[in-house]
Parts: sequence; structure tokens; C-alpha cells
Amino acid sequence: MEALFNNISRYIQLTDEEQELISRRIVEKTFRRKQLLLQEGDICKHSYFVKSGCLRGYTIDKDGTEHNIVFAPQGWWIADMYSLITAQPGQLFIETTSNATVQLLSRSDQEELFILLPKLERFFRILTENALVSNQQRIIDNLSLSAQDRYQRFCERYAGILEHISQKQIASYIGVTPEFLSRMIARKEEP
Amino acid sequence: MEALFNNISRYIQLTDEEQELISRRIVEKTFRRKQLLLQEGDICKHSYFVKSGCLRGYTIDKDGTEHNIVFAPQGWWIADMYSLITAQPGQLFIETTSNATVQLLSRSDQEELFILLPKLERFFRILTENALVSNQQRIIDNLSLSAQDRYQRFCERYAGILEHISQKQIASYIGVTPEFLSRMIARKEEP
Repeated sequence: MEALFNNISRYIQLTDEEQELISRRIVEKTFRRKQLLLQEGDICKHSYFVKSGCLRGYTIDKDGTEHNIVFAPQGWWIADMYSLITAQPGQLFIETTSNATVQLLSRSDQEELFILLPKLERFFRILTENALVSNQQRIIDNLSLSAQDRYQRFCERYAGILEHISQKQIASYIGVTPEFLSRMIARKEEP
Repeated sequence: MEALFNNISRYIQLTDEEQELISRRIVEKTFRRKQLLLQEGDICKHSYFVKSGCLRGYTIDKDGTEHNIVFAPQGWWIADMYSLITAQPGQLFIETTSNATVQLLSRSDQEELFILLPKLERFFRILTENALVSNQQRIIDNLSLSAQDRYQRFCERYAGILEHISQKQIASYIGVTPEFLSRMIARKEEP
């Protein structure tokens, strides 16, 4: 649980007893690369903490095209937030992009913990604020930056995990075709 | 304060004393149409609750083009979340699109209230989760929907305030030129 508690202790301090309250509600699972943790139409019942490896969240549009919405490398949380908070079927697919160990906290256990441990609500309030900032920045970037600048922004944001993500996956995130991204990178590398 | 407390009571119940704790920290201001509450480069120090009227949050890119990021009609909250939580200069302009009455809660007062009234942290945690869902949906829509479908989504989402928002403002939100949107609507209305 060390990675998880290091993550939480960025924003709140937990006693041993409080850590124990959380530990009891965490389920750890390991997955191989390309396993699906969640599919469109599923009800997302858990927040996933990535202990090791990397996950991605994506949608598939009516033409069958995948669109990467978020990557979650080691130390990040991921969920289909819409489905998680409404208990309605979601749109998101969540898949491992590498072998991964993931810790699951169910929404019902999370809500129980919010009552037992109000400061955990603080942790998730701050986490959600950060996610909101990051999503808002992406909306701004998509509306106002060129594909070249969006690619640059992506490389900065996900600097630590670029070797785990294919160009095809990056293209799907920044909203261009893989061929376009490939030509763009080739142009940039010309002397 | 009735509108504000009705808003808060969607998620948490407040006693008279708790309402009083909040009231003391709220500053109410009235604005005429097209007044700027926040500009790019400012540090956003408040969350704004829209008691009446409508606000919009937008950015201006390096070519001088405005991009609408969010509209906040009556009963909604708005802030430059990045700037608010980091206390760094933000990117967002926040402007009234009609005469408006706005209630301001400073971040420092908000954080004080989180300690005095932990359940207020619950309220803002839920509010932030909802905003995150809405932002994520917009990212999905931008990546996977046609301009026509994005316009449709906008009309559903902001059904109550369409008469207060010009076609030009809507075009800037869905990421097309005003001319394109105008042609699209005209085509749609053909018999």
C-alpha cells in the first residue's frame, strides 16, 4: 500500500489507524497489456489507482474510430467519472497499455470513507480540482493551439511515459491521424 | 442569500448557524453587460456564484481569436480553476454577457470554511466532480462529434439561456467560425 499512501500523503496526513481503514477497502489486481478493465455501457463502480504500468481511457465513435481521452501512468487515478457518480452506463473504455498493477476503491467504499474520514474527502476534492484544471487546459489547447503545439504539450505532460505510448495512441489523443502526426514529426526532425 | 443556499442544499444541509458562517464571507456585486471580472494574467482569487444574469469564460489565442470555454448562467459557479488553486496568473477572461449579480467567495475564505465546515468540502467536491464530467464530455464531443452534433449538444446543455447568447458566442464555443455556424443552421432549417 506504500505507493497509494505516498500518493494520498501529498495532500493529507493519515495515522496508522486511518491507513488501516483505507487498506481494508482496497482490492489489488494485476493485468497484462491490452486487458480491458471497463467497457462502454458498463457501470463504473471503482476508482482505479495505478500502482505500476499504464492505463488509457478512450471512446469509440459511431464510425468505429478510437479517441484517447486520458492516459493514467503509475501514481495516477482513473475512472469513468460520469458513470462513477451517476451509476449510469458510461462511454469510456479503460485498457492497460502495459502490464499493470491496479488498486481498486469502490464508490460505495469511497463514500463510506468520506463519512469515516472527512479528510479523505479533502484528498479527492483536491485530486478532482487538479483533474478539472488539466481537462480545462486540454479544451483550451484543442480550441486554440495548432496540432504541432498540441503534440508539444502532450510530450511535456506525459514526459515520463512517452516510451510506453505508441505514435498511433498519441495521434488519437491530440486529434489527428497517425499519418499526419508521423509527417509532422518527420518535418520537425529535418535539419 | 436564498439562491446561494438553495444551490448548496442540493448536496448538503446547513443549519442557520452554518449559513451565517458562510454569509459573512460572501461579497455580492452587480455588473452591467460586458464587464470584465477577470482578465488573462490576473490571479483568480474568488469563486463566482451567478445569482442572476450570465457570465462567460474565454481565452484569446496568439492570433487574437476568442475561444469560449464555459458559460455560467444563473445558479452556476465559475472561476479560473487553475489560477484559483495555484495562485498563479491565469489564462481565462470572465465577462458578463448580460447584467448580472454575482456572489464572490474568496479562496482563502473557502479554505477557512472547509476547516470550520467539513461538509462544505463535500459540496465543492461534488460540484467539482460534476464540472469534471462536463469537461470530459466536451473533450469527447470535440474529438468524436461533427460540428452539427456539437451544436445540438450545446443547445441541450444551455437550453435555458440560448436567448442570452449570440450565434457568434456559440460558434466560438463549439469551435467553428460564425459564418460556418450560420450556414449550418440555415441548411438545417431548409424544408
